[in-house]
Amino acid sequence: MIKIAVDCFGGDRSPKANVLGALAALKKKEDLFLYLTGDEKKIRAELHGQEYDSSRIEIIHAPEVITGEDKPTDAVRLKRESSMMKAVKLLREDDSVCAMVSTGATGALVTAAVLRIGRLKNVIRPPFCPILPTMDGGIVGVCDSGANVDVTPEYLQQFAILGSLYLQTVYSVKNPRVALLNVGTEEGKGDSLHKEAYNLLKATDSINFVGNMESRDLLSGKYDLVVCDGFSGNVLVKTTEGTAMELLKKLKKGIMSKGTYKIGALFMKGLFYDFKEMFNYQNYGGSVLLGTAKVIVKGHGSSNETAVEKCIEQAYLMDKNEFNLKAEEALDKVFSEN
Amino acid sequence: MIKIAVDCFGGDRSPKANVLGALAALKKKEDLFLYLTGDEKKIRAELHGQEYDSSRIEIIHAPEVITGEDKPTDAVRLKRESSMMKAVKLLREDDSVCAMVSTGATGALVTAAVLRIGRLKNVIRPPFCPILPTMDGGIVGVCDSGANVDVTPEYLQQFAILGSLYLQTVYSVKNPRVALLNVGTEEGKGDSLHKEAYNLLKATDSINFVGNMESRDLLSGKYDLVVCDGFSGNVLVKTTEGTAMELLKKLKKGIMSKGTYKIGALFMKGLFYDFKEMFNYQNYGGSVLLGTAKVIVKGHGSSNETAVEKCIEQAYLMDKNEFNLKAEEALDKVFSEN
Repeated sequence: MIKIAVDCFGGDRSPKANVLGALAALKKKEDLFLYLTGDEKKIRAELHGQEYDSSRIEIIHAPEVITGEDKPTDAVRLKRESSMMKAVKLLREDDSVCAMVSTGATGALVTAAVLRIGRLKNVIRPPFCPILPTMDGGIVGVCDSGANVDVTPEYLQQFAILGSLYLQTVYSVKNPRVALLNVGTEEGKGDSLHKEAYNLLKATDSINFVGNMESRDLLSGKYDLVVCDGFSGNVLVKTTEGTAMELLKKLKKGIMSKGTYKIGALFMKGLFYDFKEMFNYQNYGGSVLLGTAKVIVKGHGSSNETAVEKCIEQAYLMDKNEFNLKAEEALDKVFSEN
Repeated sequence: MIKIAVDCFGGDRSPKANVLGALAALKKKEDLFLYLTGDEKKIRAELHGQEYDSSRIEIIHAPEVITGEDKPTDAVRLKRESSMMKAVKLLREDDSVCAMVSTGATGALVTAAVLRIGRLKNVIRPPFCPILPTMDGGIVGVCDSGANVDVTPEYLQQFAILGSLYLQTVYSVKNPRVALLNVGTEEGKGDSLHKEAYNLLKATDSINFVGNMESRDLLSGKYDLVVCDGFSGNVLVKTTEGTAMELLKKLKKGIMSKGTYKIGALFMKGLFYDFKEMFNYQNYGGSVLLGTAKVIVKGHGSSNETAVEKCIEQAYLMDKNEFNLKAEEALDKVFSEN
């Protein structure tokens, strides 16, 4: 049985999306057991009337909720009765629970991960690694997308190793093509950090480093994993989402502005639907924090039922395919040599 | 007469786009005089058969071209006979020449700007400030988009002052809404650099600081100027361009995949055209380097005739509206108090 804790509060659509997402995941995986943390009454209200295998669900009552307003360290220290910290506590104290999923405050989650869950051996700082769709129908991972604003070349090397393994383990990408986010593609581009990182990545045998990437090529399908500091990664991911969303909104508005456009749009309904779905991040689950002692998946704050289900599936596959074990081995090979 | 030097080589479509762009600008502005630098024979070949006021054009022969392969400092020191360095030399030696436009190598241009042209009083490091279209039909400037990878809060403050003035002077934006690029919108977000920068921008009376901006909101129309380090800014601008371009490509491919989509597209021709034009960066000119002793406009490497014309227009408006004079005054007010 794979046991995962689901923090049912803290998201914009909590607890409904979290509870229903949990039930959907439960239906698909027979060896999945879920702990739902949060206000028991409210969780029970969502469960009411739903069909599910109640022997594989347990509610852990938590009256408090951590919000974006809470200072991360305060939230972790003081809001012990919150849905997030109850899930963290479970991970910390129960060896049989392998992972948690949360759509709550990112800062508090990262802080709790570092202070309460801890890191795998050799991991300096765990990075986030969200997955985006590429234009050729594939995917691309961005590592780190926001957990570590300041990085060193060694951090970036670890992001590359962990991210590669993640794509192999959870998404079955063979020999992932790893690129370094930079201001130009030529070797020698960027500041000293990026020059050093380039050389270090090039010298790392266990990854398939293909060189620098300019941000305009993120969706091109030429890369499987982009390695970067958390600030740039955050900009990279959110700009991509934002531009796609704004463009689709603009297209919709444009269509409504003229009769002939409306007629044309009728003919193109299927295409527009595919387009919208492709950039619907709800379909891609959450960002996994790579390199923590237990698996932590952070869903978007506005995650709906599908997104929460995908997050749980990500956590499930991480455990099923022994990501953490493989990560320790992979890092050991590189860092025990030094 | 406003005298501007146009580096006619170094771009993907040089010298044709540069020469024809220059002629187009010349036609529109009667008080414009242009120096065209580069291989005289090749420039004359492009001029051949065109109608233009030859009394307002002068060719300055330069047999060499600086490319992206050249190391910036070497290019500036050793390629003195290049089209770019001949333009720089003119700016440096002739007081009556106010600006230059180049579609050549960015690194060499920035290095030449700092080493040969120099900065305005109080300017620490000149930033690039490209302009992007917003979804409500407006524009947004990004400052810095790549000249300075490492920044301090004071740099960001200067970028805000210079960028605001640029939007006012060249684009007639009244009281530009300035935002700081950050990983979240709340005050107190980000690392110490961003927290300090936030406070500094808030305390700067001469700008209209409206708080942090998340990158997903760049095109929302809620901001006129985004202030950031050059690395993030580069990612921000190129990701926006890249996502928009990839989406339009994908849409085109989708349309061609099915008969009914093709029919629908016929009805929507006007809309698709407007869309393509909106994200055609050729329509927005180049990135102005703000705070150099003479105005320097960097056009995209793939600039066509229209883009070069727009770059010249930007340089023209900078001089006509006395940007540099106003910039020195604005900086003096803030930095003479300290």
